[in-house]
Amino acid sequence: MHTVDRRTLIAGAAAITAASLADSAAPRAAHAKAPLSGNQAPGYYRFKIGDIEVTAINDGVWLPDVGPNFFRNFSVEDAQKALSEQFQRTDKLVVPITALMVNTGSKLVLIDACTGGMFTPTSASFMTNLAAAGFDPKQVDTIIVSHFHGDHINGIRPKDGQLVFPNAEIKVPEPEWAHWMDDGKMAATPEAARGNFNNSRRVFGPIAKDITRFEPGKEVETGITSIAAYGHTPGHCAFAISSGNQSMMTIVDATNNAYLFVRRPEWQVSFDMDGPMAVETRKRLLDRAAADKMLVAGYHWPFPSAGHITKEGSGYRLHPVAWNPVL
Amino acid sequence: MHTVDRRTLIAGAAAITAASLADSAAPRAAHAKAPLSGNQAPGYYRFKIGDIEVTAINDGVWLPDVGPNFFRNFSVEDAQKALSEQFQRTDKLVVPITALMVNTGSKLVLIDACTGGMFTPTSASFMTNLAAAGFDPKQVDTIIVSHFHGDHINGIRPKDGQLVFPNAEIKVPEPEWAHWMDDGKMAATPEAARGNFNNSRRVFGPIAKDITRFEPGKEVETGITSIAAYGHTPGHCAFAISSGNQSMMTIVDATNNAYLFVRRPEWQVSFDMDGPMAVETRKRLLDRAAADKMLVAGYHWPFPSAGHITKEGSGYRLHPVAWNPVL
Repeated sequence: MHTVDRRTLIAGAAAITAASLADSAAPRAAHAKAPLSGNQAPGYYRFKIGDIEVTAINDGVWLPDVGPNFFRNFSVEDAQKALSEQFQRTDKLVVPITALMVNTGSKLVLIDACTGGMFTPTSASFMTNLAAAGFDPKQVDTIIVSHFHGDHINGIRPKDGQLVFPNAEIKVPEPEWAHWMDDGKMAATPEAARGNFNNSRRVFGPIAKDITRFEPGKEVETGITSIAAYGHTPGHCAFAISSGNQSMMTIVDATNNAYLFVRRPEWQVSFDMDGPMAVETRKRLLDRAAADKMLVAGYHWPFPSAGHITKEGSGYRLHPVAWNPVL
Repeated sequence: MHTVDRRTLIAGAAAITAASLADSAAPRAAHAKAPLSGNQAPGYYRFKIGDIEVTAINDGVWLPDVGPNFFRNFSVEDAQKALSEQFQRTDKLVVPITALMVNTGSKLVLIDACTGGMFTPTSASFMTNLAAAGFDPKQVDTIIVSHFHGDHINGIRPKDGQLVFPNAEIKVPEPEWAHWMDDGKMAATPEAARGNFNNSRRVFGPIAKDITRFEPGKEVETGITSIAAYGHTPGHCAFAISSGNQSMMTIVDATNNAYLFVRRPEWQVSFDMDGPMAVETRKRLLDRAAADKMLVAGYHWPFPSAGHITKEGSGYRLHPVAWNPVL
């Protein structure tokens, strides 16, 4: 995506250098022709937050068309202009999916469980990257769920009868449960729009008695505090992760793609159920992140999905973290 | 480094949410306490440029003090302000070291060979990451050298008698060879400043007859064209990598740390031998990158060391590539 529609560089190189082209040395045969690898590096990355180790684990990318179905209050042309200005492809919207595994030192806590491979072939790498990062699903003590969209909960139970993290206690926001598991609300929803109601029942129904519900605002596990971030869904939560004097906040789906919704927070993705409330929440969290110079993660930001925020014009700028090879 | 000197987030979380703190569910014991991993993900990343596969391979980071020894025409305070504004640590300058392995389909070509572990313990990971990326040093057909600083050439021969890439033809810029291998120039240099003269002889001396010299401006391997980029050293080269209608340019050491020298191209690092010429080269390459919307790599930019350039104020802005999990 980074090299499309661009002049070839041979011409550029010739223009840049004024040196004459000398004869090359006599060519010699390749010693050991290496095959193209054809694959990317494993998608995991670690952050140290005080005594806590956070591992961002990528599930891949979802690639919907840059089209009107995805956008509520802005045009395809608006989106394409913003994407193009930031060197992103304009035919498909790149929606990375990255969950955070938090090792608090006493518990292994997964915040959201990705797609379970149920979305697209390009977003079905979570379990592979989980293993590459050295984790066994049996080790996970707790899964904290931010909200009940399929790309956050399907990984818990992609198939009937399957529990991918067999030892994990599952903790969900009370208002999210109250919305999606309410039979009256489901009945009042047109059948064509009941997908998330049905899917929430598919995932949680058979294990409902084992689900722990938490009130947004409370500490859900030691060092992990939930933050009400409603609008995207009725019970959507962000989370603060802190240890010692270090901290990180994941705003989860308070923005979708960073190149659109960090830059233009007033733009609404069609999945923002209460659009105006989602915008208010987005600005509140990003304002706070900018004011306090927080390290911030976004579930749909470019892997490793974290950076810092500054205000810029009427929106914000994401400064992606500089990859740190030394923990 | 991303979380230092920042308010703890528990207080922030409490302020952000207005929800009351409900009692938590009764705690239960961790099922399978997982140890902290303590290590980072392997530092390699692949780009597809037409039919060519480029793998960025990280050697780690060098961490010199943010101090006057590193800077020529700007102050430590200037540097710290710029770093702080971009959320970088201000005590140590983070200098990542990342070489490019280019598989042209017919040859495996390494552009620069990193430190050979001879710099610091934090920049001694090249061979580990090379292996993680699936490469055997014996497969390398060609090493193209940009210039003769130790963090670019020591990996060829870190120890006497050792040739790390035994089958590789080594190709170096003619003017770089002419400078560093010239006994007269070395004799005219104060002994305390002869480090690179001595080290060039250490690396290349015993294999001098096998070294191929190229004139900057020419295609050095199929799809890889050298670009004269003098100033940092007398023969320093950048390289254009192209296949089909796609391309990438590595400007190598035309900038050091991106947060300082992309943003403020007039600033000179003490290693820029001809400071004014290095500034002119830096601006010429970055101007061209911005005008042509090129994908650009920098040897000392944050891993995976590539992005796009826009003009901003009197300098430039690096837009790091968005990690692409799908080649």
